[in-house]
Formats: sequence, structure tokens, C-alpha cells
Amino acid sequence: MQPLNYRKRLEQTKKLMEKENVDLILLTPSVNFGYLFKGFLDMRERLICAAIVLDKEPLLIAPEFEVERMQNSTNIKNVVGWKEDEDPYLKLKETLDFMPKMISLESTTRFENFLKFKEIFPNSDFLNAAAIFNDMRGRKTDAEIERIRKASEFTVKSVETLLNEIEPGMTEIEVQNQLIKKMSEISGEPSWALIQFDESSAIPHSSASAKKLREDSVILIDSGTSCDRYFSDITITTTFSKPSSKFLEIYDIVQKANDKALEASKEGVPAEQVDFEARKIIDEAGYGKYFTHRLGHGLGLEVHEHPYIVKGNKQPLMDGNVHTDEPGIYLPGKFGIRIEDDLIVRKDKSERIYEFDRIFWEKK
Amino acid sequence: MQPLNYRKRLEQTKKLMEKENVDLILLTPSVNFGYLFKGFLDMRERLICAAIVLDKEPLLIAPEFEVERMQNSTNIKNVVGWKEDEDPYLKLKETLDFMPKMISLESTTRFENFLKFKEIFPNSDFLNAAAIFNDMRGRKTDAEIERIRKASEFTVKSVETLLNEIEPGMTEIEVQNQLIKKMSEISGEPSWALIQFDESSAIPHSSASAKKLREDSVILIDSGTSCDRYFSDITITTTFSKPSSKFLEIYDIVQKANDKALEASKEGVPAEQVDFEARKIIDEAGYGKYFTHRLGHGLGLEVHEHPYIVKGNKQPLMDGNVHTDEPGIYLPGKFGIRIEDDLIVRKDKSERIYEFDRIFWEKK
Repeated sequence: MQPLNYRKRLEQTKKLMEKENVDLILLTPSVNFGYLFKGFLDMRERLICAAIVLDKEPLLIAPEFEVERMQNSTNIKNVVGWKEDEDPYLKLKETLDFMPKMISLESTTRFENFLKFKEIFPNSDFLNAAAIFNDMRGRKTDAEIERIRKASEFTVKSVETLLNEIEPGMTEIEVQNQLIKKMSEISGEPSWALIQFDESSAIPHSSASAKKLREDSVILIDSGTSCDRYFSDITITTTFSKPSSKFLEIYDIVQKANDKALEASKEGVPAEQVDFEARKIIDEAGYGKYFTHRLGHGLGLEVHEHPYIVKGNKQPLMDGNVHTDEPGIYLPGKFGIRIEDDLIVRKDKSERIYEFDRIFWEKK
Repeated sequence: MQPLNYRKRLEQTKKLMEKENVDLILLTPSVNFGYLFKGFLDMRERLICAAIVLDKEPLLIAPEFEVERMQNSTNIKNVVGWKEDEDPYLKLKETLDFMPKMISLESTTRFENFLKFKEIFPNSDFLNAAAIFNDMRGRKTDAEIERIRKASEFTVKSVETLLNEIEPGMTEIEVQNQLIKKMSEISGEPSWALIQFDESSAIPHSSASAKKLREDSVILIDSGTSCDRYFSDITITTTFSKPSSKFLEIYDIVQKANDKALEASKEGVPAEQVDFEARKIIDEAGYGKYFTHRLGHGLGLEVHEHPYIVKGNKQPLMDGNVHTDEPGIYLPGKFGIRIEDDLIVRKDKSERIYEFDRIFWEKK
């Protein structure tokens, strides 16, 4: 697999800093921290904080007993330790040894940490670093796309074998655990799944229960795993045996909406436009009020990230954005159908990141 | 088990609000949120936010499709939903319908959420709600202590059976997984463990490896599970067969330091004093430089919480505080011994939360 280019990410960060007149970026452990510095650390009560200034190598402030672990688990070599009875914020201030005018703060930084940063830099302005990271992380490189594609392949293959193994009488939770186990075995990384049968599938964002699979069940499978921490997110809706004509009618509408989003998504198009066009298909088929959520969201190191494909988001899509395309129709008390795959935004036309045959009920 | 009194927690919160002239508390999903409202929710990209004002029942702002789940998983009945294309912050502002002067913000609130709250309440002062929650959560009720005690019992019993099952040749990771499984089976809740043998045990905060158990190994077991989400945190250091005289010499010093902390800990004593007195024992025995971490930390809904028993923390201990008592001596290249149990702070003298026989090497 192509390596991830951390050096380039840092260079890009510095370019964006210059553009925004930012003279210091502060990051506590977070996904953005891991994106730049390789280490995905837990945020605990002892301060760990990376600092980026334009003309120097990045600096990491960490508990003294963690210095070696930090040098091994991140790509930052300049790690400054603070002792149990030292003030880590003063340590940061002394080590930096300049008064920044404009600080860009990683967006998930805790309010209590922000207040401490504000104390040591009382005259600085604090900006949200989201602008910098959304832009960079949004434009996926080929190496990143390769990983999302691999994670998608793991997911679809796991679902395929799962569907050949399940039997009527199994509960949603049993099927869900079986799928998670399967994906984790193949990817070696954390996996997640949501399995819903019949009426339950009509409630998006609900969770698996002790509800049992029947011969004539609708099965909604929303699942994913990761490859080098890059996630896939795919929803396959199928039936255990031959589908009803109502199922096929609805399936066809949702598939058309999913295809329409692929057609609408491309560089420069406002994110909400893709939601709008897919929704129009479902509206016109008379099921508009049963499509109760946004069309999709960005996908990468987080299962949900920018760009969000939702009414109100007028930001233009960028080349390299990866976003889900997941229209759904949910008929209360009956069943729900969601068809979800993942698109790469390109200049003239977006592409599906991983192609697979969706007609699972014919494969058995 | 005695029920947890959520109503009383809310009343206490309001008293502390009045005392600090706070007219609004905002909480996004967090441990403090769960402490007050029962639901331990994940913080995702869609805003979920509880608001407490003095003269009303608490309010929860949540995505519209989550309203029912929120009513079921929290004790808040007044849940206001926002639609996918609505601004949740404006919804919060409209629903509250007053301009707060002083807002207390839950301390782990994300910087990006704080900026949005600041936008809708530009003239409000924002305080850190830590003061309110540290005080309340610090004074454990009998119901809370009962849960920590139960979790401690689960932990010690699991370690006891573990020690009768392990064999030379097993790796740290294997023993660790076996213990985690054991604890989770008995408690039905998340468990964690750190197992270190011999030289590895001399590196606190390191992690388990493929290192194998030997006949003459030192075994350091730092582990815990929870009961109703209240954690235990216990470290047992023992040997697989008969201990060496060096081990017994060091063990005796560490145990004396652990006993000294129990003696020093009581209401009104500055937290750092307890660290100081236990450390003195180890200093005087000539091993001061091998006791490289703080003496302890508060314990409850989080494994690490206030009060921290560390040099520099001059805050007086309060009746009902629960804190770990975990001195250690780490001899590089040889072995480390840490003895950790948990104390309840009382008026005249602290108490061990769960008594157990520490001499595990004689039990085999």
C-alpha cells in the first residue's frame, strides 16, 4: 500500500497557517492530532499538547514519564516532559518562548484546556483550527482512498459470507456480533455494525434488539471496518428469501436516488445540491416524507466528518472529498430500505469508491 | 443496592449555581452529563446539549430523530428536537428565551461548541463548570461507595482466581486478557487491566507485551472493573513462587508508605500532604528517586478524577472523597512494586473501601 505522507501534511498545514496569519497551532490528542503526528492517543487528565510554529519542527509537551512512549508512538521527536508537580501550561509557554498573536486551536480541545491556554496567552486571539483540518483532510490522497477502498472490500466480503450463514430464528444482536467478528478478523481493526429486521429497519438510528429473523424478513445491514484507521461505511438492504413486490418497488426508488446523487456530485457543486437532487427523486415518487435524514457525510479517519451532504451546507465539494451516498425510505411499521455507498468527488463526475453487486437476494 | 439519587444531584447543582451567580449551565454528552441525567451518551457531530436554569426543569436539545431515544436513555423529559437543516444553537437560544449573564460550561465541552455558544450568547461570561461538578462528584454518597466497593470485590476475586490459573510460559498479554475476561464476566461491565512481569514491572505506565511468566517472576497487576459505571482501581504486586528477600524488603517499604497514606488522609488535610507523608517513608528508606509518580487520584465514574493526590494540590480533602493510595518503588532492570487500594476520606480518619489480604504469594 502507498505510504501516508506525514511530512507533506505538515507542510500543507504550515501553508494554511501562513494564509490565515496563524502563528501557532495547538493540538491535544484527537483525530486531527493523529492525522498530523501518526499517534492516536487518548485524551486523559494530564496535558499532552502538540505545538506547530512556522519556522520550527513540531514540539510535544507531555508528562515526563510518557516522553519515550510519545517518541515511539508519534512522529514528533522534540518531546518536552513535565514533572508531576510542574505546571504543564507554563512549561509550554516557556518552551515556546514567544507571544503568539493568532492561535489556531484544534476544534475538539476541551473548554478547560482552552481556558488554561487563554491564561498563558491572554493577548492572543483563538481561532478554530477546523478550517485548516477540514480542508486538508477533505482532499483525500490516493493513499487514503486506497485504504477506504480496502476497508470497503473487507466490509462487502464480510456481508456476503454473513448472508450465506444466517438462519431464521437468529436475533439482530446475534447477526450483528457475527458480522463485527467477521470484519474484525479480516481487517484486524475495529469494526461496527447495525442490523435491523422488518419493522425495526424502518427506524433509522435505532439499535439491534432480540428481534428474530424470519423466512420473509427484510434485513438492513449498516456496517464498516477500517484499514489503517480509514473507515468504510456501507448499507446493504436485502431480504432473506424472495422479496415482495412492495420491497422491490421501494428498492428501485432508493437505488435511483442513490444513482442520482452519484450523478449530481462533482467538484464545485454545493454539498446541499447533492442532497437536494437525490431527495427530488424520492419526493417525486411520493415518498418524500419517509426520507427523514440527510443524504450523507464525509468519510475517512472518522465515520462522520466533513463535508456533510445536507440542506444548508452551501460549501462547494472539492476534488478528493469522499462522502457517503445513503438515501433511504422508511415505512413505519413495515420496513425501511437504505442504500449506502461511498463516493470520491472528482472534477467532472464523482466515482463510487468500491463497486459491488447490490442484488444480494438473488445470490443465495 | 441503594438507588442513586438524581433528583438530589440536580438540587445540589442548583444550589451551587445560586452560590456562584450562574444562571445557565450547558452540558454536552460527558461523564458530568451522565452523572446528572443518567444517560452516558456519545459525543458526535450533531449537537446534543442539556441546559439547566434555576426555576425550570432541565431541557435537552437533540436531533429530532433522537428525541425518543433521549427520553428513554436520560431522565430529562423536556427534549426539544432540531431538524437536519435547522441550526441547533438557534433552537437552543429560542427555547431558552432569555439572555444569561453567567454561563457555566461543562469542562470537557469542545472548543468548536464553545465558539457556537459564544455566538448565540455574545454578552455572557463563560465559567468552567468543573468547580460545581468536582465538589458534588467528590463527595461520594453511601450509594456510590457501595458501588465502588462492589467493583473492588469483583476485581480482587478475579485476581485471586487468576493467580491460581496462570502458568509459567504465559505472556503478559495472555494473562491480561484472561483477567479482563474474568472481571467482565463477574461485573457485566467494562474492565481494564495492566499486567507486567519482572523488569517490565519497573516501568509504570508501560503496557503488556509478549514477555513470558517465569517460575521466579514478579507479577504486577493493576486492574479494575465497574459496578453501575463506578470504577475500582487496585494494584496487586506478587510473585509466582516464593519471593526473594529483596522483593520482601521493598514490599515492606511500599506497604508502610501505603499504610502511612491511610493514616495521613482525612477531611481538611491538603491533598498534597498525603502524598508528602507516604513519600517520606520511601525517601527515608533510601528509595525516594524510585517513586516516580503521584500518590493517587480520585476515583468514581472515572478511573482518574478529582481530587489528585499530588504535590502542588493544596485543596483540602473532603468527607466522602474516594482516592487511590498507590505508592510504588521501581528498580530499573529489576522489578517494580506498587501497592494500590482505595480510601474513603472521613472526618477523623480515612478508611479502606475494601479490605483484602495482600500476601498473595502465600495463598498458592
